[in-house]
Amino acid sequence: MTDKKKFIAVIGGNKCSPEEARNAEEVGRELAKRGAILICGGMGGVMEAACKGAQSAGGITIGVLPRDDRRDANPYVQIPIVTGMGYARNAIIIKSSQAIIAIDGIYGTLSEIGHALQSGLPVIGLNTWALARNGKPDNSIIPARDPVDAVDKALELAVD
Amino acid sequence: MTDKKKFIAVIGGNKCSPEEARNAEEVGRELAKRGAILICGGMGGVMEAACKGAQSAGGITIGVLPRDDRRDANPYVQIPIVTGMGYARNAIIIKSSQAIIAIDGIYGTLSEIGHALQSGLPVIGLNTWALARNGKPDNSIIPARDPVDAVDKALELAVD
Amino acid sequence: MTDKKKFIAVIGGNKCSPEEARNAEEVGRELAKRGAILICGGMGGVMEAACKGAQSAGGITIGVLPRDDRRDANPYVQIPIVTGMGYARNAIIIKSSQAIIAIDGIYGTLSEIGHALQSGLPVIGLNTWALARNGKPDNSIIPARDPVDAVDKALELAVD
Amino acid sequence: MTDKKKFIAVIGGNKCSPEEARNAEEVGRELAKRGAILICGGMGGVMEAACKGAQSAGGITIGVLPRDDRRDANPYVQIPIVTGMGYARNAIIIKSSQAIIAIDGIYGTLSEIGHALQSGLPVIGLNTWALARNGKPDNSIIPARDPVDAVDKALELAVD
Repeated sequence: MTDKKKFIAVIGGNKCSPEEARNAEEVGRELAKRGAILICGGMGGVMEAACKGAQSAGGITIGVLPRDDRRDANPYVQIPIVTGMGYARNAIIIKSSQAIIAIDGIYGTLSEIGHALQSGLPVIGLNTWALARNGKPDNSIIPARDPVDAVDKALELAVD
Repeated sequence: MTDKKKFIAVIGGNKCSPEEARNAEEVGRELAKRGAILICGGMGGVMEAACKGAQSAGGITIGVLPRDDRRDANPYVQIPIVTGMGYARNAIIIKSSQAIIAIDGIYGTLSEIGHALQSGLPVIGLNTWALARNGKPDNSIIPARDPVDAVDKALELAVD
Repeated sequence: MTDKKKFIAVIGGNKCSPEEARNAEEVGRELAKRGAILICGGMGGVMEAACKGAQSAGGITIGVLPRDDRRDANPYVQIPIVTGMGYARNAIIIKSSQAIIAIDGIYGTLSEIGHALQSGLPVIGLNTWALARNGKPDNSIIPARDPVDAVDKALELAVD
Repeated sequence: MTDKKKFIAVIGGNKCSPEEARNAEEVGRELAKRGAILICGGMGGVMEAACKGAQSAGGITIGVLPRDDRRDANPYVQIPIVTGMGYARNAIIIKSSQAIIAIDGIYGTLSEIGHALQSGLPVIGLNTWALARNGKPDNSIIPARDPVDAVDKALELAVD
């Protein structure tokens, strides 16, 4: 039963630096330890590292894939959701989550942050985008000090 | 780990007769007993009965929901995927599956059968649609005698 | 201004026989003569012939494309809508239309017929699918004698 | 025939200030004068003002709507595309365009900017978001001085 489990998205680039991969892996592991279910885009980089960490701690991992082939999923995705929708699938990752942890990432991650803030979902950032609109800073992305802090905040702020 | 597990869709109406519900529940239970993962539209009727059966046998259930609220899912969905795409989400159910079991169902089910046959996926039918094109019968839907036969055929024919 | 214009979908195979192409071209031409706007999947076969006919009579043609490249559109599409969603785009063709004319077609067309009937939209058929459910014929597809009859019925039955 | 016409998206908030509405209307009018086709989300605010401007100058306006009802479109949308996909439709607006003009806007606009930059499409900004990543400014959004400058840049930079 997963009734009480939280669904938390980890978003970030399809490629990432070794340091970001370590952060993502620790986020995944920590989410699994606390009983949360990891949802992500199912590809490489930050997504793969987060899935690896979650699986290493016995967690469940969901990958919402952009193309038509389940074999695109990284090897740590247990539940591949095959959309064939390209980056329009980013909206599904966000809508299926109760809080978002953004680790680095480029423009795909930016689109997911936009969707999440539009939906009123908490977005926790680890070295990711900073926003300003019309010359004024927008502080909607909640900064985290480190992976454990990111998971603490995501689980505390997760919506129902 | 779900690496070797088959993902099998059960499709059918959001409302159904008691007999169809019994069939769907038995299909779900049988899929779970054989270690398959159930994917469906996450709503009521055939979908709910199938999830109930799968959960009763310790199986994993995924519901790909049409609207924006995870609470739309029937109580036996463990993994709600929230699409907010309406019936365009039918395509995701099919693309995420390796074989399809259709139980009764009306026009939404017909659209899923169309998608599945277009994708070259096996469709096993239990009292569902019959097709003819340009005056000639189309026998692409594989008939099953009963729920166990449907699960046998789905697992035997599931694509990789 | 297109305020009073009807949006009519023409659906059918990406490949078709010369006779079906003639039918589709006449449907497109007739829709344009009556001031209707043609919406289709934007690819070849029935879709291309219908767009060719509509354009020859000065009509507007919309192609809702499955992939990411506007250059996939047949040469008679004036308004390419690029979805990158594969066959999930079929739902958008249907939702954007007020009546549907189905000409031949295989499983993609079947999925669109399912979506249209689910939405309560009139579906006019020219040598297309015939349906039965649970052993009983389903006569929801309205047969047309010829292209002009198909257009007559589509415009008469088009929903608001 | 629209073969050589450019498809330009105007993105921005569903509500906007009078000044932003004036800017959007001028952008729409200017696009129409130069023969470009306007594509937008079809709703109110910046989208409505841009459609109003385009229509006043005889241009074609396309609205890619989030919900299931064509009547949601603002009164200046000539071609309503009904997606029923919620904000996942933002991806279709971007994929269907050859350049993007962003006017103000909040988080939905941010998601569209992310999609556009991910697709390598030029994004011209009029008083919109400013971005920084990992502490470094990201200057991918090209600033415009005024509506005419925005249209100049969009048409000059539009991809094929």
